Amino acid sequence: MVKQKIAAAPSIRRLPAYLHLVRQAQREGLQYISGTAIAQELNLEPIQVRKDLSITHIMGKPKKGYSVASLIGAIEHFLSWDTTRRAVLIGAGNLGTALLGYQEFQYHGLQVVAAFDVNPEKIGSRIHQVPVFSVETLEQEIPTRGVKTALLTVPSHAAQAITEILIRVGIEGIWNFTKAKLRVPDTMVVQKEDLSSGYALFCVMMQARQLESYSSS
Amino acid sequence: MVKQKIAAAPSIRRLPAYLHLVRQAQREGLQYISGTAIAQELNLEPIQVRKDLSITHIMGKPKKGYSVASLIGAIEHFLSWDTTRRAVLIGAGNLGTALLGYQEFQYHGLQVVAAFDVNPEKIGSRIHQVPVFSVETLEQEIPTRGVKTALLTVPSHAAQAITEILIRVGIEGIWNFTKAKLRVPDTMVVQKEDLSSGYALFCVMMQARQLESYSSS
Repeated sequence: MVKQKIAAAPSIRRLPAYLHLVRQAQREGLQYISGTAIAQELNLEPIQVRKDLSITHIMGKPKKGYSVASLIGAIEHFLSWDTTRRAVLIGAGNLGTALLGYQEFQYHGLQVVAAFDVNPEKIGSRIHQVPVFSVETLEQEIPTRGVKTALLTVPSHAAQAITEILIRVGIEGIWNFTKAKLRVPDTMVVQKEDLSSGYALFCVMMQARQLESYSSS
Repeated sequence: MVKQKIAAAPSIRRLPAYLHLVRQAQREGLQYISGTAIAQELNLEPIQVRKDLSITHIMGKPKKGYSVASLIGAIEHFLSWDTTRRAVLIGAGNLGTALLGYQEFQYHGLQVVAAFDVNPEKIGSRIHQVPVFSVETLEQEIPTRGVKTALLTVPSHAAQAITEILIRVGIEGIWNFTKAKLRVPDTMVVQKEDLSSGYALFCVMMQARQLESYSSS
């Protein structure tokens, strides 16, 4: 797995929220937006906002703030969301289907060109316009499509076996939605997405909230 | 929104991965597991693992490690995943439907008892066994169900209006899957889930990977 530490990871994770907000400002006709206004809207410290945005190399203008158009361009360019990234999706179950229909991806340059599943009823069909192939054809289908990115939404117990095929056919990065900890070569990028993490935090906040209301009543 | 800083947030976010691993160890018949073994499996530093697990107040035994059964119990209890949390889901679109079918939730004590949508074809039906009601009946249906938690999967532009209803009917915590930054009272818990954050990180890692291969070739 690509081991290099992404030092600015928390800043990078916040960039999509900035982008969403600044696009909204653009739709409302704004030409400039200040770091302070962004901070207020997103409940962050202004100094944090300026630090986060500085990784995209954008410069604000004194008193005016950031040019809305430049800021959008800078974030999109930094994330490479201004170019198309072709991807395949493996596992067209509930989550896979939801991801295939996720409109937001078009704003991120992500284009899923093929899906793969084991279910004979799905194979040969299209889900949200994306053609579904048999997982048994991964080795034939992927190399012909010039795809380097895979979204992995198979059951966790099948994740490693599929990963080994993905490695063989030249996939360079896996966005992993399974619970499996994938064993991959050092050169491979893996980003693990785990809903349970957010839910764990939610539960602890709910408990803290209840303790607070008990103690104040 | 509950403003209290959850200082241990990164540790809490890792607890589900520990839980998943230790449950697997239990299925394999292990009675004890060491912090070092956990660290190795999850690609973390042993000291980090011990620090993370200490928030659940579990103690390992010298040379043996953690009792597998106790560790599962301690994590589940810390996250309140050993009790049932009843919830409603608002917005039974692609993502909402995927969440309703997400088997993993049963291991987290999360029980979605009702879903709400605007689509007449869905209202009155069941999705993954969960009954779907009209969003217009939120104020009647929620109070009768003793539910304090809502999963919000509506289009972002509808999120704030729905949130205001949820506040009125006594919802105390929202797991927010929309892009909207919700305006809520200080007492409300909001956990925002944003796929774009993980994807942003993925894209930056992919770029870093490509730069590395250029420079080494």
